[in-house]
Amino acid sequence: MAEAGSETPDAAPVLDVWFEFASTYSYPAVVRIGPLAAAAGVELRFRPLLLGPIFKAQGWDTSPFNLYPAKGRYMWRDLARVCADLGLPLTRPPVFPAHTMLAARVALVGLGAAADQGKRAAGWGEAFCVAVYRAAFGEGRDVADAAVLADILASLGVDPGPVLTAAGSAAIKAKLRQETEEAARRDIFGSPSFVTAGGELFWGNDRLEQALAWAKRTA
Amino acid sequence: MAEAGSETPDAAPVLDVWFEFASTYSYPAVVRIGPLAAAAGVELRFRPLLLGPIFKAQGWDTSPFNLYPAKGRYMWRDLARVCADLGLPLTRPPVFPAHTMLAARVALVGLGAAADQGKRAAGWGEAFCVAVYRAAFGEGRDVADAAVLADILASLGVDPGPVLTAAGSAAIKAKLRQETEEAARRDIFGSPSFVTAGGELFWGNDRLEQALAWAKRTA
Repeated sequence: MAEAGSETPDAAPVLDVWFEFASTYSYPAVVRIGPLAAAAGVELRFRPLLLGPIFKAQGWDTSPFNLYPAKGRYMWRDLARVCADLGLPLTRPPVFPAHTMLAARVALVGLGAAADQGKRAAGWGEAFCVAVYRAAFGEGRDVADAAVLADILASLGVDPGPVLTAAGSAAIKAKLRQETEEAARRDIFGSPSFVTAGGELFWGNDRLEQALAWAKRTA
Repeated sequence: MAEAGSETPDAAPVLDVWFEFASTYSYPAVVRIGPLAAAAGVELRFRPLLLGPIFKAQGWDTSPFNLYPAKGRYMWRDLARVCADLGLPLTRPPVFPAHTMLAARVALVGLGAAADQGKRAAGWGEAFCVAVYRAAFGEGRDVADAAVLADILASLGVDPGPVLTAAGSAAIKAKLRQETEEAARRDIFGSPSFVTAGGELFWGNDRLEQALAWAKRTA
């Protein structure tokens, strides 16, 4: 028999990263998390979702930052300070919250392709997600616009046509619904949310480092 | 003429600390802030308020952690992690949110006595505030109970009788109303909130260090 261990290294700890592309604080989180996870030896699973249905179940028909103006004014100011500290550009998008269903479906096409290959980060999914956030909040582009998404795909060397077609497939539409439902079942109520293999939930850009450390410690 | 400077040191930067005694995340913040502010050379002004009227203006009749159960479950778990990291005991109080009008009025008696003497921290006000949070969230006592507040005062060497009488005075009642109205005018929507002399607002235990650093840098 082959010796155990030498050829089967321990699996890296996995952290699920749930996010909604319209979420402001998810911008610094998703932009930052790749290098931090690599340094920590934590494998990420990017899981785009739609917060709309989750907010609707709470009785909200838009972002709480719009429903509660003082909280919204604070959020934009706080986000500006957070981005300044990180050296990230910040430009308010033209529509807030953006309509992100198409962006999320496109992301699932890219992330799913990687998953189908059995290699998490082999595809363009994660790079697309980071680029969508940079476009939305770094450059203030409206990521509801299919042309903007096509630009992003092209910038990643991906042919936009087939991807946008795949994003409209019944399978991808169902996948996004299922993912959003699973997030709600896991008690996720905001973005970004981080969930360890053991089910520990962390919410917010402020908890990114703690979530990685927890995933690593409890793997 | 006397030389300038030697006897008139620059005034320390001041940070207003607004808080509601029922607020969970204000527990670690108020317990921690005294030593951190002293180390940073920042003078604190403790300003108790009532979140009830502010929440009511947003259409809420209780804490958002009760209105949105998933968010509430997360908050208690997150608070447990925060307190564990800080080595602070955590016991859920019997009523949440606690009725804190009397505690806030008593605090104003203590804080106001210090202000009347021209010495911010000369009285027992700040120590009382810290002790109320420790009783409420460290020991799980109901700080709506006048007997609990009397215990706390006695433990600080303060005769409870005259203080509780003063807390019921028209002047103190008006003061708490005015403070809560001023907080709303300053766009405060949650607790703890930190406001620098220049009007920069920081919200939450997570922003305590940043608020102190900002106050110091911009003084």
